[in-house]
Amino acid sequence: MFQYSLALPEKRRGFHLITQEVLRAAPAIGRFRRGMCQVFIRHTSASLTINENADPTVRRDFETFFNKAVPENDPDYVHNDEGPDDMPAHLKAAILGASVLIPVVDGRLALGIWQGIYLCEHRNRGGSREIIISCWGEEV
Amino acid sequence: MFQYSLALPEKRRGFHLITQEVLRAAPAIGRFRRGMCQVFIRHTSASLTINENADPTVRRDFETFFNKAVPENDPDYVHNDEGPDDMPAHLKAAILGASVLIPVVDGRLALGIWQGIYLCEHRNRGGSREIIISCWGEEV
Amino acid sequence: MFQYSLALPEKRRGFHLITQEVLRAAPAIGRFRRGMCQVFIRHTSASLTINENADPTVRRDFETFFNKAVPENDPDYVHNDEGPDDMPAHLKAAILGASVLIPVVDGRLALGIWQGIYLCEHRNRGGSREIIISCWGEEV
Repeated sequence: MFQYSLALPEKRRGFHLITQEVLRAAPAIGRFRRGMCQVFIRHTSASLTINENADPTVRRDFETFFNKAVPENDPDYVHNDEGPDDMPAHLKAAILGASVLIPVVDGRLALGIWQGIYLCEHRNRGGSREIIISCWGEEV
Repeated sequence: MFQYSLALPEKRRGFHLITQEVLRAAPAIGRFRRGMCQVFIRHTSASLTINENADPTVRRDFETFFNKAVPENDPDYVHNDEGPDDMPAHLKAAILGASVLIPVVDGRLALGIWQGIYLCEHRNRGGSREIIISCWGEEV
Repeated sequence: MFQYSLALPEKRRGFHLITQEVLRAAPAIGRFRRGMCQVFIRHTSASLTINENADPTVRRDFETFFNKAVPENDPDYVHNDEGPDDMPAHLKAAILGASVLIPVVDGRLALGIWQGIYLCEHRNRGGSREIIISCWGEEV
């Protein structure tokens, strides 16, 4: 098993493709004929998901949708000391999830042709985000 | 590690039990005394989840709920070239997830008695869907 | 690979930190220099997620939010024989997911400093909940 820790520089609030950053940070993916690769984010107000890697309007619409589905300033929130984007960020992170797990086939992530890995930044100023990439399986 | 690629024939929009298709496609599950089995879908407008395997009305209510929670024709969507079901399909896929990971105990998926694997088809005409099944662990 | 089955005593409807229960039940986590730990729940009306482990108001706001996002008594639900909390429980379980997968580094769950494992109990009287903990990797 190989593991890598990677600090992603701060990104603006929204949805960002990070497939290339993951591939660059985890060269061991290329060693596995059959394997698995997990990407895990060590935060509770940012998340990871897999979605369309081509048209950037998809990522813009993700931000639009999740801002409506998980509103800020709901008067029923009790946890609001850290600003209006804080509690919604926790909720969005739980809905989307802290990790993605992708098969590795012949040394490559077996993503579909339209699939990419998204970093979902739910805070206005989330700062740098730490991810852990783990790879295991049968070597070539 | 064993991996299988499986093309599921087109299913109509909605939620479908595929536990039996997965088991038939992945005979290696039976080899593991203790193991894991991941099912991964290589698409961004269909998804996989685990839920009730008995009453089909649960699956019907899933379709009803997600159509309300992720509406079509929101005028704020920018990505709408591929029809009103396209952007909602991407969003539903992200909410539900591209994979499920299930323990294998004594050669069987250790699902609870009421749990089954759902293929969630979010497009009106999604076509065939490709999944990859990966199994690993300690053999009997 | 090590696997543990654990019956969690009934918890009230809502979101509960179970990180310590998981660690106590799975001593093999300490054996792995690099590894993975999955926690899987064998039910369709309770779920697992990772979120903030400190301020209990976050968990209270989770309950508030999900009760609004997945309403009870929607007249469009067909599956309602088991009470108004039943179908919403299935939907919440699918949104949040049946498992979490966490890297193990130097014998410890590599959670971020603010991350904990939540048991999400979506039924009014869910009873005891069974989870399976699976750990694998390279031993120290």
